[in-house]
This record gives sequence, structure tokens and C-alpha cells, in this order.
Amino acid sequence: MRTVLKFGGSSVADLDRMKRIAEKLKRRRKEGEEIVVVVSAMGKTTNQLLSMAREASENPSKREVDMMLATGEQVSIALLTMILQEKGLQAVSLTGYQAGILTEGMHTKNKIRDIDPKNIEKYLSEGYIVVVAGFQGYNENGEITTLGRGGSDTTAVALAAKLHCHCEIYTDVDGIYGVDPRLYPKARHMDSITYEEMKEMAFLGAKVMEPRSVDIAQNYGVVIYVGSAHEDRRGTYIQEGERNVEERSITGLSVLENIMMVTISRLPEAGTHTADIFRKLAEEEIIVDMISQTPMPDGSVTLSFTASAEDRKLMESVLHDVVDQLSGAALTTTTEMLKVSVVGSGMRTQSGVAARIFTLFAENGITFKQVSTSEISISYTMEKAHKEKAVALIADAFSL
Amino acid sequence: MRTVLKFGGSSVADLDRMKRIAEKLKRRRKEGEEIVVVVSAMGKTTNQLLSMAREASENPSKREVDMMLATGEQVSIALLTMILQEKGLQAVSLTGYQAGILTEGMHTKNKIRDIDPKNIEKYLSEGYIVVVAGFQGYNENGEITTLGRGGSDTTAVALAAKLHCHCEIYTDVDGIYGVDPRLYPKARHMDSITYEEMKEMAFLGAKVMEPRSVDIAQNYGVVIYVGSAHEDRRGTYIQEGERNVEERSITGLSVLENIMMVTISRLPEAGTHTADIFRKLAEEEIIVDMISQTPMPDGSVTLSFTASAEDRKLMESVLHDVVDQLSGAALTTTTEMLKVSVVGSGMRTQSGVAARIFTLFAENGITFKQVSTSEISISYTMEKAHKEKAVALIADAFSL
Repeated sequence: MRTVLKFGGSSVADLDRMKRIAEKLKRRRKEGEEIVVVVSAMGKTTNQLLSMAREASENPSKREVDMMLATGEQVSIALLTMILQEKGLQAVSLTGYQAGILTEGMHTKNKIRDIDPKNIEKYLSEGYIVVVAGFQGYNENGEITTLGRGGSDTTAVALAAKLHCHCEIYTDVDGIYGVDPRLYPKARHMDSITYEEMKEMAFLGAKVMEPRSVDIAQNYGVVIYVGSAHEDRRGTYIQEGERNVEERSITGLSVLENIMMVTISRLPEAGTHTADIFRKLAEEEIIVDMISQTPMPDGSVTLSFTASAEDRKLMESVLHDVVDQLSGAALTTTTEMLKVSVVGSGMRTQSGVAARIFTLFAENGITFKQVSTSEISISYTMEKAHKEKAVALIADAFSL
Repeated sequence: MRTVLKFGGSSVADLDRMKRIAEKLKRRRKEGEEIVVVVSAMGKTTNQLLSMAREASENPSKREVDMMLATGEQVSIALLTMILQEKGLQAVSLTGYQAGILTEGMHTKNKIRDIDPKNIEKYLSEGYIVVVAGFQGYNENGEITTLGRGGSDTTAVALAAKLHCHCEIYTDVDGIYGVDPRLYPKARHMDSITYEEMKEMAFLGAKVMEPRSVDIAQNYGVVIYVGSAHEDRRGTYIQEGERNVEERSITGLSVLENIMMVTISRLPEAGTHTADIFRKLAEEEIIVDMISQTPMPDGSVTLSFTASAEDRKLMESVLHDVVDQLSGAALTTTTEMLKVSVVGSGMRTQSGVAARIFTLFAENGITFKQVSTSEISISYTMEKAHKEKAVALIADAFSL
């Protein structure tokens, strides 16, 4: 048996936690299991490195940011490997490059193109625990790259796909809940969830797994187990299977924080301005969400959309170029926003869901800036201040 | 014109210092110079990483120590590159691997085997300032390696040799002195020194340059300039030339600290024990110095030698194996020692030097454990407590 286990930043935040992880790995290795461990940078390391980069330069080169960030995981893999060796185990650490993780795309937001597992396979066949740096790889030019948010999950799932085995993701929560239990303590724990359900929740802000990792798992049939790194409570399996939510109108609720809302007013209605804007944002790989365009009485249009507040500087520099060329057009950016989404494949058959939520919000004084619906979800952009109240209202109303 | 400049850990200890270095580089780049910069890890980073490694494991695997340590320079090169870019310069960072620095030997003590400069040449030809991680490389197995003490100097000099240019080493002193000015404030500054003289001083503990870097420079005819990173005082050229010390009996004085003295008593005189010991130490790449062997009245011999106190654990584990097999033999290790050496090619023609120093020491109550002489130097192993007094006595007596 062979497994890829992934431990996130908070579960390797210090040496004591790493030692506990090493004990767990030792027990499993002693039972003959072949083990690949993917680790993130320790605790807040990545943020510390990023803030150093910002001190060095207001808008640091992304190639160099990748060069910096990759050191975080490199320290983790070396330390965990030393601890495993100290416990008498054969272990070896591999950077993304050494693990054969070839990427493509833009620095800081690369995607895995392929994995050459020969180095990993060699060490596994010799009985080593192979400790791989998550979140990183190399590109065709031999440059060090990183995979962006949730990148260590992607590394783990992609490795499991290539090595034909299960993937276990250890984090600080003991699985998937209908609502984030930090937001709503009475949230319902799920023993199993399908890839589709997980992606819907993840796209809408559930922090447990990034949707692209789930996509890879689905494409290659990798079973993912999400569990707590340091507690023995039962986790959640993400796998193919019956949707267990047909009878429920809503599977879950998710909250995406740190959102900004961008509004460009007085855009000429005619012309390719809107297309231009989104093309330019796509070139910078800025992910845009919840687009709405409203015609105004004066014949112009107002365009709004949301995006991650982290992209604010880059976004503004792109948009100012466009807006400055259009007389009268104006750009407004509002941060401190969040997106609350309710997800459920039963929703399309129960059109009452949307109405019920609109009523709940109206009766309780919650205003929202935007709403968007899909077949299986409804999302609301609102001010951060409404968070707790909106979550509790929806979770109570739909027994999440 | 093309130059390799190297900045040590204390000259890149924080972003402010890096920014000052970037200004210097900018001025020179604007004059059309092709620039390769080699940087060390910031300030005490390497020591911090080492102490983390020791917390993870009492005797961490050297492969993993290299994996950890290499992150220190990787952070420096990314930050300095960002700062250079912020100043409007084209700059790019390269790890040891990306700079083509192939090494061989044992982890943590590798030697440069060859450099493939194609990546550096490509960036230089496109006008980039190329920022290379000092102290690191990769081996035939694709593993990350480090070069041991003084490794960044070695990187810089070897690059200069391969790129056919001068090498400038910037540090926190403004060149080479007859005695370390931190030990003896009236020390004499040298404008120029030959490779041979520099090596003699370096072998005997002068901290400015490692002898193997000077060796490479001498073999490839690389002129080295040693200067202060942040002051504009004149530095020292290390280059081929007339020995400027023929008329002087002593060129300089150096002090090597953190020495341990190892004594093995009651070794059987016959047999290959001594050879065995040094072969085993060599296998672990422990560098041994000042060996003395004294016959005892009982027919046994007492073997003493010095080594760096950093190798104590490893040394003791090697020697215990040997000593435990010999009934009666005993091992003693004394740390807190230092080695004081006086160097000078004029010494062989003036046999009075040794006598004069013995007298100085005797009259001033300085005892020493060992003495060794070569054609051009005399070295004394003594307790740390004698340091200041011994240095001042010799420097005064020989006007260093």
C-alpha cells in the first residue's frame, strides 16, 4: 500500500508538531506502507517572506517572489526529514524540482504540467519515506515556481494521481462541514462528499480544499481523505459516489473573505471596453467573480465585479490605464467585503430557496451589493460586518 | 569590463544595507560594467538554520543540513534582486544549481568541481545584473550541496576564474592587516599582498579569506580586491607580485579561535593505530592540525592534535571506536583553546624569531600546549585566556 499524506502550515508550525507527525508516519511505515509526505512552509512563514519581499520592493518581480517563497517549504522538508531520521527511519527530502514537478504559467500562479516520478519511485523502492516540498515546482526555463493558494494540496493530489494511490490531507479541522464550524459551531460534519459537491463548496469559499486539487482528484480518480493533523476524530472522504444531498435543498454554506468590489461607472455602452478590461485582467491572471453590468439612464453602463483584495494594486494599475483613456469613466474599489454562498444541487428544483433567503435578509436588516445565481448556488456580496448574522440565519433556516 | 562582486553576511544583514549595496551596483552598471554579484545568507541566518537543525536532530543528516542551509542564500538573492529591480535595473537571481555550480565531496563540505556559466553568460549578454547564491551548488545526483566555511568566497573566486574577470570581496573590514585590527587596533593595513602570503595568513586563522579561495585565484590568475562593504576606505589587492616582506622577519600574526586539543594517551607504540585514527578522521573530512606524538617511559605513545571545536561530537564518536578497542588507551578533549601563529617568509633566514617569541612568552607568563614550526610560520596552541596578551606582545615586538 502506498499513500501521499499532506500536512499544512499550521500542522508543521513548530518542531513539536512535526515530531508528532513523524510518530504517525513511523507507525504507518512500520506496517509496510510506502509513504510520500507533502509539507507546506511552517506556520506563518510564507506570509513573513511575502512581507519581506514587499519591504524590498513595492511591486516585487514574481519570479523573485517565487525564489523567496520556495525557501519556506525547503526548510520544512529538511526539518521533517531530520526528525524522521532521528526516529530511525530512512527518509529523504525533495524540492519541487527534485520531485520532478514541472509547471507552466505565470510565476506565483503556476499550474502543474506534468510530474516525472522517477526520483520518488527510486527512493520509495529503497524503503525511504519521501518528503516533498509542497506548493513548488520548476518550469521549462529551469526557474523555481510556486503554485499559488492551496498549492500544497495540488502537489499532494497530483502526486497521488501519478503514483496511483490515495491522498490524505491533514489540516486543523477534522473534515468537511456544511458550514465552517469556526463561523457556526453547530455545523454538521460530513463523513463523505462527492467531488462535485466539494468543488461547489470550494469555489464558493470553503477553505478546506482548493477546487483545482479536487478537479485533479476527480479526473484521475484519487480518493481524498481530509482529517485533523493532531486529533483522532473521523474525517471526510471526498470521492465519486451518490450525491447525498438530493433530498436537501442546500448542502452547505461558504464564506469567502477579503473580497473587493470594483465598480467602473460611465463606461460607453458601445465598443469593446468591457471585453478589453477582462482580457487585460486575464493576462495578469487576476481572477474575477460575480460580474454585473447595468445600463444607466444616460446611455452609459456601470460595470461591477468582485475579486480578491490581494490583487488590488495590480488590478488598479491595469484598470487605471483603461479608465484614463475614457473621458468620464470612473473607477471605485471597495474592500472589506465578503461573499456568502449557499450551495446545493437540490436548489434548482426548489426555486423557493432564493426567495426564502431574500426574505431572511430583508427581515433582519442585511443588505447586499450583488447577487448571482447558478443552477446550484446563490452568492451574495456584502459588507464584512454582516458576516456572523448572515451565516447564523442561513444555517438555522436550512439546518446545516 | 566585467566583475564578480561578493558581499558577505554582515554586509547584507538587513534591507537597508542591501539597498546601499544596490546603489553601488547601480552606479557601476550605469557605467557599462557587466556585473555578477555573489551574496551570502543575511546576518546570522546560517547559524539560526543550523540551530533549528540541531533541535530537530542531535546529529542531523548532512544532506538535509545542506537542504536547510541553502535557503539562507536563496532568500538573500531574491531580496537583493527585487531591490535592484526597484531601482530600475534588470536583475535576476540564480541558485547555485541555476548558476551551474557543480560540486563534489561530502555534504556540508563540498568542493566546486566545475561551473557551467551558460545561464550567467546569457543573462549578462542581455544586460542583467546576475545575483548568484554563494556557498551552494549541486552534485551529480542533483542534490543541493553547500561548500562549507568561506564557501561564498569560493563561489565568487571560482566564478571570476570561469568568467575571466576580477573578483571583489566586500566584508566588514577594509582589507588585510598584519594582525586582525579587532585584536590589535594599531595593526598595519596592507595595500597589496601576494597569494602566497595571503594563504599563509589564512591557513593560520586570518578570517578575511579562506585559503582555498586564494588557491583558486592563484591557479587561474584572478586578482582579488578585499574591501569594506560600506566604507570608502582603500582595500587590499591580492595578486601575483614581489613579496613585499623579504626585509621583514614577520608579515603578520593570526589567531584561530574555537580550537579543541585532543590527546590520546597510552597508545601502543607499535602498530597502525595512529594511521588508523587519521584515516578515519579523513573519511569524515575532519581537518586535523598540529599533530604531535610523544614517546612515554612505559613504551606507549601520547598523540595530540588540534581541530575545530565544531567537529567535537563527530570526532569523539570516531575516536571512541578506536580507543575502546585498545586496553589502557584514554581520550581527552580540551576545548576553549586557540592557535596563535606568526607568519613570515623572512623567518627561515632569521632563526632568532622563534627564540624571541619563546622569551616573550616566558617573561610574560604565557604557557602553551603545543608548538609547531614550518619554514614560514610558528604556531602555538594555548588557552583562550592568553589571547589579548599574546597578540599585543608579538605585535609590539615585531611592529605589525
